[in-house]
Amino acid sequence: MKLVPGTSFIEPFSVGLDLEAAVMEDPSRVTVRKASAMRGYYADPAALERLIASGDPIHYKVYEVPVPEEYGHLMYCISELEPGLVGDEYFMTKGHYHSVVQTGEIYLCLRGEGFMVMKTADGRVVAEPMARNRMVYVPPYWAHRSVNTGTEPLVSFCIYGAEAGHNYGDIETEGFGARMLRVGGKPELRP
Amino acid sequence: MKLVPGTSFIEPFSVGLDLEAAVMEDPSRVTVRKASAMRGYYADPAALERLIASGDPIHYKVYEVPVPEEYGHLMYCISELEPGLVGDEYFMTKGHYHSVVQTGEIYLCLRGEGFMVMKTADGRVVAEPMARNRMVYVPPYWAHRSVNTGTEPLVSFCIYGAEAGHNYGDIETEGFGARMLRVGGKPELRP
Repeated sequence: MKLVPGTSFIEPFSVGLDLEAAVMEDPSRVTVRKASAMRGYYADPAALERLIASGDPIHYKVYEVPVPEEYGHLMYCISELEPGLVGDEYFMTKGHYHSVVQTGEIYLCLRGEGFMVMKTADGRVVAEPMARNRMVYVPPYWAHRSVNTGTEPLVSFCIYGAEAGHNYGDIETEGFGARMLRVGGKPELRP
Repeated sequence: MKLVPGTSFIEPFSVGLDLEAAVMEDPSRVTVRKASAMRGYYADPAALERLIASGDPIHYKVYEVPVPEEYGHLMYCISELEPGLVGDEYFMTKGHYHSVVQTGEIYLCLRGEGFMVMKTADGRVVAEPMARNRMVYVPPYWAHRSVNTGTEPLVSFCIYGAEAGHNYGDIETEGFGARMLRVGGKPELRP
């Protein structure tokens, strides 16, 4: 069989993904980000420091069975973002562009409620609601961050091209241009 | 914003995907293949002709909200394969390689039971069981066909690179090298 340079041949496999419990069975890699990994991201740094001091709770987890990070393979994961507030700002992921900026991503929400906040490099911001039974299409070029505005974990099944990579640096420097805040008890996207 | 030639910029969107009912809400394209589209695929052509003569029932449906068929976008669909037999052979999809052969696909099974049968161009055949809560990874280079060995529709959420395309011709000429037959009331993969 003729292989194409840059795309590995591997054996088929399957993975248990409990759609009721919203968990991946036997992930071989779990990435954990605690509150202390989120310094610099929230509008209220003092509130974040209080949260860190009170036990540095888990902010979000990513469960994977990794595949080669190459064109033609598809990376997939379960992303689990805890509910909570940092001051008046809802818990969120760091957010990133893909390193290969023209690659998109699909999020199939399994549990919880929140928003996928997306932005372009020239500053447009859009938020799509996330809830069980809703699939969000993050098109090529859009940076994306999930925000948990509910009371239980926000859990999604995510799929993207395995060559895509993550570019967190641009969000660290340029921010997202808008924040999901609790205003009068309800989420509101504020510039 | 700098765009990369060959990958269109589009707006984010979301789609309803009912994980209990295993249906896509408001698909904008539905592809239907009836039994008569499957001539040449089954071991027992006379049994297939009887099925066609008895009303030419729907064999499988694919529900989509299409995106540009370009690198960087991700195509996704709900695939729904009816249960049934053609002689002693379980209902199946035509099966295909991707035109860009080094691109994989992910199937998240939502309903029913069956197998994803996969083959390489040099004739190896592998079958992974499909059932709700099971995700099958179809790696780059592997042709793939789903087979419904249960009594209700076999429904999966599928994701693949939007540039991948479908190559049905190679399967039409080379076949799959193995068939999923009912033997003593149970499915068995027979060369």
